[in-house]
Amino acid sequence: MRIQDFFPIWSKLAPTTQEKIQYYTNKTTIKQGTVLCDGGKECSGLVLVCAGQLRAYILSEDGREITVSRMFEHDICLLCASCVMPNIQFDIIIKAEKDTEAWVIPPWIFKSLQEESVVFSNYMNDLMAMNFSETMWVMEQILWKSFDKRLAEFLIEESVIEGTTNLTITHEKIANHLGTAREVVTRMLKHFQTDELIILKRGTIEIINSEKIINIYIKRMQ
Amino acid sequence: MRIQDFFPIWSKLAPTTQEKIQYYTNKTTIKQGTVLCDGGKECSGLVLVCAGQLRAYILSEDGREITVSRMFEHDICLLCASCVMPNIQFDIIIKAEKDTEAWVIPPWIFKSLQEESVVFSNYMNDLMAMNFSETMWVMEQILWKSFDKRLAEFLIEESVIEGTTNLTITHEKIANHLGTAREVVTRMLKHFQTDELIILKRGTIEIINSEKIINIYIKRMQ
Repeated sequence: MRIQDFFPIWSKLAPTTQEKIQYYTNKTTIKQGTVLCDGGKECSGLVLVCAGQLRAYILSEDGREITVSRMFEHDICLLCASCVMPNIQFDIIIKAEKDTEAWVIPPWIFKSLQEESVVFSNYMNDLMAMNFSETMWVMEQILWKSFDKRLAEFLIEESVIEGTTNLTITHEKIANHLGTAREVVTRMLKHFQTDELIILKRGTIEIINSEKIINIYIKRMQ
Repeated sequence: MRIQDFFPIWSKLAPTTQEKIQYYTNKTTIKQGTVLCDGGKECSGLVLVCAGQLRAYILSEDGREITVSRMFEHDICLLCASCVMPNIQFDIIIKAEKDTEAWVIPPWIFKSLQEESVVFSNYMNDLMAMNFSETMWVMEQILWKSFDKRLAEFLIEESVIEGTTNLTITHEKIANHLGTAREVVTRMLKHFQTDELIILKRGTIEIINSEKIINIYIKRMQ
């Protein structure tokens, strides 16, 4: 697993830039639960995910969360370097949701790469635009889509990510992903259970009719 | 009004880049109501606002709007060039809210400047981060703040922008800024009137106690 395999623009970088990245970049194991970036004051640098899972979320003053983005293998976490981007003026928290293997370009190297390489700078621009688009998507979901659809979509997404229809996730955690209260999630899940879409057990949610969930809540809205 | 007066990084650009910008940039008058960018398929280019007012907003399928950003003198509209940024994957509409004077760098020149100048590219990165931060702010408002506070804030902001406490604006227009229905705005405005904060007249809203609005709805939430 070489860094070049996780950096799409590698071949376009100047040899000196490539060498600099190789010299200063560390392959790291990030334990589940580790905070990589907490509100922009401290951060890890540019994180290239080789394996595992990261989650970026915002937090209200009273502790409510909402997931802005989730990152997997071959994703690059630009906001993990937000402490060296003074114009990122929001506090975003990035946490490892699973044990994660990653290449990490330290913040000060990230900054110098951005100043010396137009290819690197433009690629960071692309990544920023992608992050921006993702956030806009989340905002549009919150604004225009009803909660039942968002929850249905989350359950299907989660079952694809985990590769199982038996989800081990608390209602609290789902509420934190979707920016709502636990009670709201529980109420809607019970409604899904009555409709025979899922079965609720202690600590798990079993999807018993994903086809019906997709037909009712996901396909219809397009 | 020279273009360099509206381009903060002008002195850092290479002379050839400065010449290119001066050669290809047009000073334009944009009539109130003109759409500068509509969903990313067509766009104006990079717009440097000399005077006037622009508004960037998103639109739901059923026609509901929400304002993401408003731009004034000395602001630069990066999203006005979104048609040449393939990673901006959301549809944003940018419209002149008032007659606007602006320098416009055409999309293809914008693209070539980004490829040739690391200074230009990094500055676009800064602008993108600023836009991203603004959107995140809007999202946080929607998520965590109650509607009465958002409306109070909008009225005060609008009175600062227009330089008057007598606002000529329809309830429909306010609803479009804040991403809600007209009825919701009307109901809350009537509530503000009962509390003797404003007086509602045909087509206008008169703020009669802005101090009280700020004390009750704006200061308290910080």
